[in-house]
Amino acid sequence: MLDLWYSEYHTEDVRFSIGVTRHLHSEQSPFQQIDFFQSDTFGTFFTLDGLMMVTEKDEFAYHDMIVHPAFATNPDIRRVLIIGGGDGGTAREVSRYPGVESIDMVEIDERVVRLCQQYLPQTAGQLDTDERIHLYFEDGLAFVRQAPAESYDLILVDSTDPVGPGEGLFTVDFYEHCYRALRPEGILINQHESPYYEQYAREMKRAHQKIRQTFPVVKIYEFHAPTYPSGHWLFGFASKSLHPVKDARLDQWKSLGLDTRYYNAGLHQASFALPTYVQQMLDDHE
Amino acid sequence: MLDLWYSEYHTEDVRFSIGVTRHLHSEQSPFQQIDFFQSDTFGTFFTLDGLMMVTEKDEFAYHDMIVHPAFATNPDIRRVLIIGGGDGGTAREVSRYPGVESIDMVEIDERVVRLCQQYLPQTAGQLDTDERIHLYFEDGLAFVRQAPAESYDLILVDSTDPVGPGEGLFTVDFYEHCYRALRPEGILINQHESPYYEQYAREMKRAHQKIRQTFPVVKIYEFHAPTYPSGHWLFGFASKSLHPVKDARLDQWKSLGLDTRYYNAGLHQASFALPTYVQQMLDDHE
Repeated sequence: MLDLWYSEYHTEDVRFSIGVTRHLHSEQSPFQQIDFFQSDTFGTFFTLDGLMMVTEKDEFAYHDMIVHPAFATNPDIRRVLIIGGGDGGTAREVSRYPGVESIDMVEIDERVVRLCQQYLPQTAGQLDTDERIHLYFEDGLAFVRQAPAESYDLILVDSTDPVGPGEGLFTVDFYEHCYRALRPEGILINQHESPYYEQYAREMKRAHQKIRQTFPVVKIYEFHAPTYPSGHWLFGFASKSLHPVKDARLDQWKSLGLDTRYYNAGLHQASFALPTYVQQMLDDHE
Repeated sequence: MLDLWYSEYHTEDVRFSIGVTRHLHSEQSPFQQIDFFQSDTFGTFFTLDGLMMVTEKDEFAYHDMIVHPAFATNPDIRRVLIIGGGDGGTAREVSRYPGVESIDMVEIDERVVRLCQQYLPQTAGQLDTDERIHLYFEDGLAFVRQAPAESYDLILVDSTDPVGPGEGLFTVDFYEHCYRALRPEGILINQHESPYYEQYAREMKRAHQKIRQTFPVVKIYEFHAPTYPSGHWLFGFASKSLHPVKDARLDQWKSLGLDTRYYNAGLHQASFALPTYVQQMLDDHE
């Protein structure tokens, strides 16, 4: 029997490994190393520069949590910008809202999208069937710099870690242009790393500090992402005016009748309640 | 440089590994294989039959969450029974409440306690300094069978998985004797496995089903335990009468002024809000 293991080092001395039944694809794009794998427990999964991105088994948790809390805060979101998210899972969840008129998705690496369309239809299947989705294969920072003022209700930053292609998406310049591109009730959600291992906690604190320089409302929420380092993962919620808990319109969201495997209205407020040590790390930078 | 790795298989094809700087101790007790290790990221940690139990880095999360939600529901708890918990971390957190009069701790394996006193004073340090703590090296099921009726306000089941020495602590017989031994406002908290990997989810559902046969109030709450399989871990809250959210006395709990690194009053209700798929797994058995 084939004995093949994919491993990610979460620190120099912490390693998470998955038995691979087939290495489906490997290529070096202009931006990064892309690999697709098959496994028994996680189904198909893919990595960028060796780091875990998406598995069939648990992508629903990540994609539910990056999308639905914003819509439960403002169910009238019409125009959405997704930065990154080449696997298509974020666009898939956004496209479930009938009120959404347009979804601009800006992914720097077209190869990620094309390979996910081939190997991960579970996440990428909507990308060429929903006419509201517009794909741009460009740099996210450059795109948002040129976006008209007050042109989006929601910006979702579905990025890799702040090294390599994702680096520009963790800068004050980027957050300021997001602010400018958002309407008065606009919301920014960003991939916000993790509080547990030191290297990730440092990036979490740096991102938080920068977003607080730019937006008046800045909150952090958490969820379980078992295939990411430590499984304790965060998103940032920033907005020009709306508070994610006080202004939430959960009844209106529930009336949409969306089936969601991870997110639910009861989890909305709960996900913004953080362990003491996480809150203290964030407060240290306030 | 020494290249030594401890690994736990979370499934047959999922492996979590920690670089070990020193294998501090290894012995076969009458009940299980006990090993203590030193590592850079987690500090000292120990395993039973090769499975991760406690690390210096994150034991605070587990011990906060097994103890404090019960006390925030009923801050007047006086008499406590701990089943298992040989590392002493649970007793340490209970002993922080000045109102507690007596802590009976029943650990089947004295060697776990003695070795934790030697290698893990961070968790075991209180065991011989707090006179309210009474140690019994006995089988937990046998102990609770002989306990007088209505003799405890709180029973904490800090057990291993339901294989090996922990098996009897996941039976209807055990839960029924816990019920009998609890006062009318009594609370039972138990280690409740995880919803993520199939084998653990099966044990989670079985335990839930059994406890529901016995107690009128049964709720599940979750927290982040990065060194346990998937990091998505649960405790069960069962009681004869008190509801953990509706009857919570958070202001009274806050007035005690305990510093807690993970638990806080804001997290209390939040931890009982479960992802949809977890709630559905539990409902299937109701």
